[in-house]
Parts: sequence; C-alpha cells; structure tokens
Amino acid sequence: MKGFFKVQTPDEIYKKMDRFRPLSFEGLKIENALHRVLYEDVISPVNLPAFPRSTVDGFAVKAKDTYGVSEKNPGILQIVGEIPMGQVSAVELRDGEVVKVATGGMVPKGADAVEMVEYTDGVDARTLHVFKTLSPLENVIQVGEDVRAEEVVLHRGHWIRPQDMGLMAGIGKTEILVYRRPRVAIISSGDEIIPIGKSPNPGEVRDINRYTIVSMVEESGGDPIFLGIAKDRFEDLKEKIETGLKDADMVVMTGGSSVGTLDFTGEVLQTFPATEILGHGISIRPGKPTLLADIAGKPFLGLPGHPVSAMVIFHFFGKPLLKILSGFAREEIRHQVKVRAKATRNIPSVPGREDYVRVRVEEKAGTFWAHPIFGKSGAIGHLVKANGLIRIGINEEGLEEGEEAEVILI
Amino acid sequence: MKGFFKVQTPDEIYKKMDRFRPLSFEGLKIENALHRVLYEDVISPVNLPAFPRSTVDGFAVKAKDTYGVSEKNPGILQIVGEIPMGQVSAVELRDGEVVKVATGGMVPKGADAVEMVEYTDGVDARTLHVFKTLSPLENVIQVGEDVRAEEVVLHRGHWIRPQDMGLMAGIGKTEILVYRRPRVAIISSGDEIIPIGKSPNPGEVRDINRYTIVSMVEESGGDPIFLGIAKDRFEDLKEKIETGLKDADMVVMTGGSSVGTLDFTGEVLQTFPATEILGHGISIRPGKPTLLADIAGKPFLGLPGHPVSAMVIFHFFGKPLLKILSGFAREEIRHQVKVRAKATRNIPSVPGREDYVRVRVEEKAGTFWAHPIFGKSGAIGHLVKANGLIRIGINEEGLEEGEEAEVILI
Repeated sequence: MKGFFKVQTPDEIYKKMDRFRPLSFEGLKIENALHRVLYEDVISPVNLPAFPRSTVDGFAVKAKDTYGVSEKNPGILQIVGEIPMGQVSAVELRDGEVVKVATGGMVPKGADAVEMVEYTDGVDARTLHVFKTLSPLENVIQVGEDVRAEEVVLHRGHWIRPQDMGLMAGIGKTEILVYRRPRVAIISSGDEIIPIGKSPNPGEVRDINRYTIVSMVEESGGDPIFLGIAKDRFEDLKEKIETGLKDADMVVMTGGSSVGTLDFTGEVLQTFPATEILGHGISIRPGKPTLLADIAGKPFLGLPGHPVSAMVIFHFFGKPLLKILSGFAREEIRHQVKVRAKATRNIPSVPGREDYVRVRVEEKAGTFWAHPIFGKSGAIGHLVKANGLIRIGINEEGLEEGEEAEVILI
Repeated sequence: MKGFFKVQTPDEIYKKMDRFRPLSFEGLKIENALHRVLYEDVISPVNLPAFPRSTVDGFAVKAKDTYGVSEKNPGILQIVGEIPMGQVSAVELRDGEVVKVATGGMVPKGADAVEMVEYTDGVDARTLHVFKTLSPLENVIQVGEDVRAEEVVLHRGHWIRPQDMGLMAGIGKTEILVYRRPRVAIISSGDEIIPIGKSPNPGEVRDINRYTIVSMVEESGGDPIFLGIAKDRFEDLKEKIETGLKDADMVVMTGGSSVGTLDFTGEVLQTFPATEILGHGISIRPGKPTLLADIAGKPFLGLPGHPVSAMVIFHFFGKPLLKILSGFAREEIRHQVKVRAKATRNIPSVPGREDYVRVRVEEKAGTFWAHPIFGKSGAIGHLVKANGLIRIGINEEGLEEGEEAEVILI
C-alpha cells in the first residue's frame, strides 16, 4: 500500500537519536544560570568552610571539659571572650575556658566542640555552667567538611538547580560556561488550521498545537520561534521548513506526518541536502505516525496533528532531543518524573505497542491512585483533566483494577 | 532564658498562613500565560469539535455498510467524493457510498463512522473494497465530545500548563485575567556575609543564601528583588526591611532568626505599624529557628542562615506563602511532588519534630531507593548531592533499612 510506513519501537527511535550532538556554549554571569546546563566541570578553588565554624549559638569549649557534666552536676568553666561574627579570633582556648560564639562563627584554636546556649547558664560575666557532655567535633563543621579544595563539585552536563546556584556562590564561581539554549522552529500545518483569533468556518479548527508545543519547548529550556501555519502545499511547507533550518537548531512540525501526508512531507525534506529519514511510525499510542529526520545534523520532528498525540510524542521524543542539543548528561536525557500508582479501574491495552493512557493521579493516605481518563486522541479537554500518563509496555495487556503501574507526571 | 522561643508544629504555622490573601490581577495575551495562575473561570463559548471530525485517514461510511465484511469477503462501496481539509462537505452520504476524508476532516451528513485507509483497497476511481467491520461512531469525534459550549473548562486558581494553553487556544480564548506575580524582596544578613565576588577574610563567608532563595522564588513564579546584605545593626536591618515592604509583596530574610538575633529582628519588625509575629520556632529539622510575621498584610519570613536550613524552610513555608499570594487554589497550596522510596540504610530521627533527611533517590527495576546523605545543616555540598527529602513525622523514630517512606523531590 502506497505511503504505508515501517513502524519502529520507541527504543529503536531513541537509539537513532544518539547521532545528534550538543550545541556550542556561552559564558554567563552566575545570576543568569538557573536551569541552564553546565558546559564545564566546576572545580572548587577553596575549602568550605574555610575555617572551623559553629553550627549553633553557644560556647566554644574543649569537649573533654564537658565529660560527665549533667543538669544536676554542671561543669564550671571560665568565659574568656566572645568571637564577633565575620572576624578572626586571636584567642587560643586553654583547659577550663570557653568563648561565646554564634551560629556560623569561627571556633577558636584549642576548642573542638560548641556547647549550645540552651545547655548553659551564665552565673556571672566570667563564669558559665554547662549541662551537657559533648563529643569532640560536636556542633562544629570542620575546614573542607562541606567542600574540599580541588574537588569537582558539579559536572559538565548538569542541569543547574537552586542548590547548585548556592554551591557555586559559596565557592566564588561568579561566571560559568553553559551550553547554548536550542532555538526551536515550530510550524503548524494543515489547510483546516486557522489562527486562534479568527472565527472558524465549518470544517476549520483553531491552532491548538502552536500553543502546546511552544509551551513545552519553553518548559524544556528551548527558545521557541513560531513560523506560522503552513498550508498543505509543497512550496508553503518547503519555505517554512527552510526558514526553520536557517534560523533554528531544530524544527518541529505538527499535522504533517499522518499516512496521507507522509510522501508529501518526505518529499519536501528530501529537497534539502544531507537529509536522512530516521523513522516514520513508532509503535506507541497515541502518536504512531511520527516522523523523525536528520537534516544536515539538525533534528526535524513531525508530529501528528491530534493535539494529544502531538503532546505525548513531544514529551517522549521532542524533550529528549532538546536535552541532547542542550548538552544534558547522557543519563538525564530520558529522565521522567514518575510515581507508582494503582489503577482505580481496569485499563485495557493492545500488545505490540507502548500505550500511554491519560490518568489523574491522586494521593490518598500515602497511596497514589490513577483514575484513567478515556477519550479519543484529539480531545484536548481530556488531557486537561489529566496530570499523568500510565505506560503500558509493548508486551503487556493492560492493567486490572488495583494493579500498580508507573505513572509519568505531566 | 531570654529570647528563647515557643516552638510550634508545622501545621500550626500553616494554619496561621491562611490569613494572607492573593494579590490583584492583570490581563494578558494568551501567549504569555504559561505558568501563571488564572484569576477567572474559563468558560468555553463553543463546542469542540464544532463539527464531527474523523480521527483517522480513510473513508467516511455508514457503519452498517461494513457489517460482516472481512479481508476475504470485502464490502464493495462506491466512492462519491473527497472532503477537502478545512472545508464543508455538501455531500450527504447514501447507502453503499463512501467519501474520502483525512484525519481531522469533516465527516459528512449520512456517515457515522470512518474506515481507516489501511483496511481499504481502491479497485478503481469509483470503487472501494473495505475489510473491517465498524461500529457506529468508530473513528469519529462528535460535536462537543471534547468540550461542550458553556462548560467551565478551567477554574480560577489553576496553574496554567501546556495542555491548558492548548485548550484555551482551541476555544479561541486569546486574552485572560491572571493573578499578578508576587514581588519578593530578599535580604541576606550577618556581619560575616560578603558578596560572592569578594575574597573572604578568615571568619567571613560568601553569600550563598542570596542565590538559593532568589532561584527558588523564580522557580515558584515570583519576581525576586535582592536588596543586599544587611549588617547585624538595628538601623541597617530596619532600612532594608522597610525598602522591602515598600517595593515588594513579601519579604524574605536569611540569617537573622536564630536565638542570638531573635530579639533584635523582632524589635525591628515591631517598629512597623500593624506587625504581628505569627511564629518563631517550628518543630522541624533543619530549620527550627524560623520567624514568620504579618506586617500590615504582607508576609515576612525570617530563615536560618544555614544554607540547607534556609532552603528546606523556604521549600515548605516560603513556597506555600508565595502560592497563596499568587492566587493558587487552596488544595494546591501545599502540593509537593512526591514518590515512595525504600531507605538503603537505617535513618535515625528524634521524635517531637518533623525531620527532613536529605536523600538521593534512584530507581532500580521499578523500585525507588533513597540513599540518605548525612551532613551538618550548613553543608551546601551535601544538598547538591541530594534530589529529595525524606519526611520523618513528628511522632516517628526514624526508618529502618528497607522501610518505605515518602520522599519529596527537590
């Protein structure tokens, strides 16, 4: 049958995606680095902390001076000073002496522990009662205990989270190299598709996919460039794809990859030099008629026109492609946020393809429950009611009520 | 003991947070609405789809004309036309007739199902063999099946995801009202804290909290305004907090809420009219010496100076406060992304407070495992190794190896 395609498994498609390479890099001030991907290994030039610090408000002591003390039998120690925050202590503690220190303050020489203020009582300006036995190093964070000098603290390919920002701040890393953000050209196609501000005539529909795909690209750290709606005409598609390849690092088109338009889109792609069709048809539902091509090193992803199919396929294939271009470490490329949940109803499935069933996950008394939301794949209203996708594997036959399965949160 | 505070449970603090109210609203073009919070209920003015649509490429038929057909015994039907995409069909199908239709095309009057092209064979231009029996409505999405006119499709307080963008596009909602983004003033405090571009003298440390808290505010949909580092002096703190209250909707300060600075910060806050201290001290670890106040309706959150404590407390109290100001629906305020994971080692804890242990969650063969990362609470390096927090409840005594617990992903 003309135009009928050879379906591949998701894993076959993932393997073929390995050919794509990360983009180049740029320098950034640390202030702008949140959610970017590191191009360099970050190595600490310093020990953190750089000096022994107290983790509590209290009194720096020699731990041995607290051995055997209790509420009823306090140790009696001599207050010989106070360490002002942010300053060096010239004091060197001798036996039987304490120095007042606040949280984060420097623990002076000679001291090896800090008694919390809650376990002390100041008898007079020079005399302190302590009630609690300390072990050496208790309530003290030592030099280099947090980060050692010369340690690689963050690796190339790491996606920068708030705690990573904090670490880089702590070691004085004010500028870093990160991978460039991928520019993603987005094309809607189909003679029936109209801009959302217009009133559709019968037979016409508003361009849903522009908004879902642009949003997903933004969520994935790409810069979306919407190129407009292409009519189902060779020249119109070619012109838009050409613009996309020129201005962007990746091209995503919706609506042009079902059986009916296969030959057509394929023909358009073949007019560009160094085009290789990597796959057309994935054993996954929804989203089977997906097209993936390599055009001189840039990925082209053709998604089904059904909004739900387009979203599911972009989630499982578009996002990993973007992560490859963004320089993500290999093990992060296909990472998904997942929970294990029990089905509230039977969920049927057909073996021979991966099935992604829309579900609403709810937690009740520590157990996650997945309510399937059945609907035809064109139904955006159903996807709005969902917050997860249950994966039913290629050789599985669906789930029974109460059975547990993996849910990918969306 | 002077300045010692009355510790409250997390739930007591959450209850007191209920007094804060969402900010005002603004109008936006839909293009800019991703991750904003709806101020209005969105009601669909139209049915989706507005006309009966095919979900496949194939031929619109009367289902009864396919009853009993098979590969060996095909039905023989007459092709009477083709429905161009985006156009109305004037055809009304009679018995024994089919009309060619593409995915998303209009199903003409008289037809009630669509035979997929894979199950047909065109004998000549006018004659089609069909091989598969269809039920009525098979491969057809009916008028209003996705969204019904007058239906409330999204509710006030909803956080807008890509699929919600798609739904609003589909119903022609080009402009919406959303809650204003909260402006959050951020102050670092402490005589030992220096900007990260400077080289610390002994006793000084770089300002980690600025970067973690600014990043977490950005991730939570707020607009951070960093006001600089306040010295531990009454006038300096007062001036910075005053600026924050003037320019922002919420003030977050780090480093000023341990026992040592309690009276001090409290005194500064009391100089503003209509200040109410809602809590000082939460039975949670890390992060016990947290300060929450209401200053003429604006929340003030004083976080411990330890970077890890500050992050944990901002996660559990700062983010919910931001969500309240942002207009989130009530049930979303305390929502966390969680998985259930098994401890790879014993994890001790002290009853009487909620304990949040840093863990690294890994999935192995469908089971989530949590590796505890033990470290003193000042250790940012340890938090960087973590991707989750295990909650050990206020009346629990820790976890045994292999025991399952809830992990909050961070």
